[in-house]
Amino acid sequence: MNVLVNGEPATTIDVMDRGLQYGDGLFETIAMRKGRPRLLAYHLERLAEGCNRLGIASPDAAVLGREIAKTATAPDCVVKVIVTRGSSGRGYRPPTNAAPTRIVAAFPWPVLAGERTPDGARLRFCDTRLSSNTRLAGLKHLGRLEQVLARGEWDDEDIAEGLMLDEAGMLVCGTQSNLFVLAGEELLTPRVDRCGVAGVMRRAVLEWASRRGMAAREVAMRPQDLFAAAEVFVTNALIGALPVRELDGRVLGRGTIAVEFNRWLAQV
Amino acid sequence: MNVLVNGEPATTIDVMDRGLQYGDGLFETIAMRKGRPRLLAYHLERLAEGCNRLGIASPDAAVLGREIAKTATAPDCVVKVIVTRGSSGRGYRPPTNAAPTRIVAAFPWPVLAGERTPDGARLRFCDTRLSSNTRLAGLKHLGRLEQVLARGEWDDEDIAEGLMLDEAGMLVCGTQSNLFVLAGEELLTPRVDRCGVAGVMRRAVLEWASRRGMAAREVAMRPQDLFAAAEVFVTNALIGALPVRELDGRVLGRGTIAVEFNRWLAQV
Repeated sequence: MNVLVNGEPATTIDVMDRGLQYGDGLFETIAMRKGRPRLLAYHLERLAEGCNRLGIASPDAAVLGREIAKTATAPDCVVKVIVTRGSSGRGYRPPTNAAPTRIVAAFPWPVLAGERTPDGARLRFCDTRLSSNTRLAGLKHLGRLEQVLARGEWDDEDIAEGLMLDEAGMLVCGTQSNLFVLAGEELLTPRVDRCGVAGVMRRAVLEWASRRGMAAREVAMRPQDLFAAAEVFVTNALIGALPVRELDGRVLGRGTIAVEFNRWLAQV
Repeated sequence: MNVLVNGEPATTIDVMDRGLQYGDGLFETIAMRKGRPRLLAYHLERLAEGCNRLGIASPDAAVLGREIAKTATAPDCVVKVIVTRGSSGRGYRPPTNAAPTRIVAAFPWPVLAGERTPDGARLRFCDTRLSSNTRLAGLKHLGRLEQVLARGEWDDEDIAEGLMLDEAGMLVCGTQSNLFVLAGEELLTPRVDRCGVAGVMRRAVLEWASRRGMAAREVAMRPQDLFAAAEVFVTNALIGALPVRELDGRVLGRGTIAVEFNRWLAQV
């Protein structure tokens, strides 16, 4: 693992960093493919928007780009970028003059969720719910305890992902992915304006569908809607679009949208 | 600042610690008064219960006690204890064999909220809401971004605290305190079973009231209930009970419960 903290090689951060103390920061997980950071512009845009919403000074995009290139020594790897508000004394109050902390770390390309079931992924529903907060909705902030607890609900290596509901019982996303459903001719994905993360691959799918003249919408989605769908897939920055074959032991509809999207993605 | 990380003097932690990566941990803020950690048993009980709920191995109480004594070199100071699930590779999945990280840090005794207004504290309502999650409710976990944003809403040094509502508009707590209201003969505090932290000083007040034969209950509380109350005060481990004199510019009822409780607390 190569790590740069504020541009310098390091393996540790200040114990008073507000990322640790309060989850006061954001992150991005970027796929390096053939030596290029995939959808980098989308990652940088989301990070900048998140910093803006939290009142954290956004890191310079050119600096980040250089640090990503410097840490990613393998052509195919994963780069995680963390930006925190920086260090401060004790207390929630965000300091006005904090210098943000920038962590860029490269990891080997992983075995991806779903690779063990090439015929289509198996998913489950999680019991752990996602809480709603309009001020935090969509952000990839550092408070991920709900996802940790949800991912801790199963050990079966053949289950690729768990889907999460909000406290009202509506579908939101997977523990580490967004969710898409083909219903008739329409591509639908749950809204992320109350909870959930606005994934970069989710954005790429929505824009790709739109360019193809396909109707694509954000909706309120119920768990049972998945069983009636023509096709279900989940997305994230590493897996692209992962077709879902089975949910809670029930076989789902199979389509070609995810495969077509991945074909486009391979050329990006 | 004196800091021990897993018992050793340190000023940094591993960049892969899940406390930083995911907010995957808990903390306690303990008042050292005259060389003794106040309500230590309550802090240790809450920490152990939190570890149990998150599936983190709870640190040994005797070890923690020694580390608190070792860092707290001043008779009056604040000790913050953080316990995280420890370091792991990338990914939300909680590792089964992680070694938890234990951080014990001592800070000078601070200027407390409300000290600038000895005649009774001034409070405000915050716009930032608290999200609800029954699995996390009551825990003092590391994901405190809602409190950070709420505390960032005001700069006026004379405002001691901001009160926070849940997404349904019901009162929960302050950014760093719990809330009590005297209504008739009854002492009331908002439930923390959907969001909010079950504060140790909150517990101490409830038990103290019970010992005095006073009716004390957890209830659903509306913002407007405060203006009709005979007395309002907020509590935390450092301030004890802080009488509230003014809320959003309106003068509140004044009573003697907070003062009586603090008299008892001074002898603990």
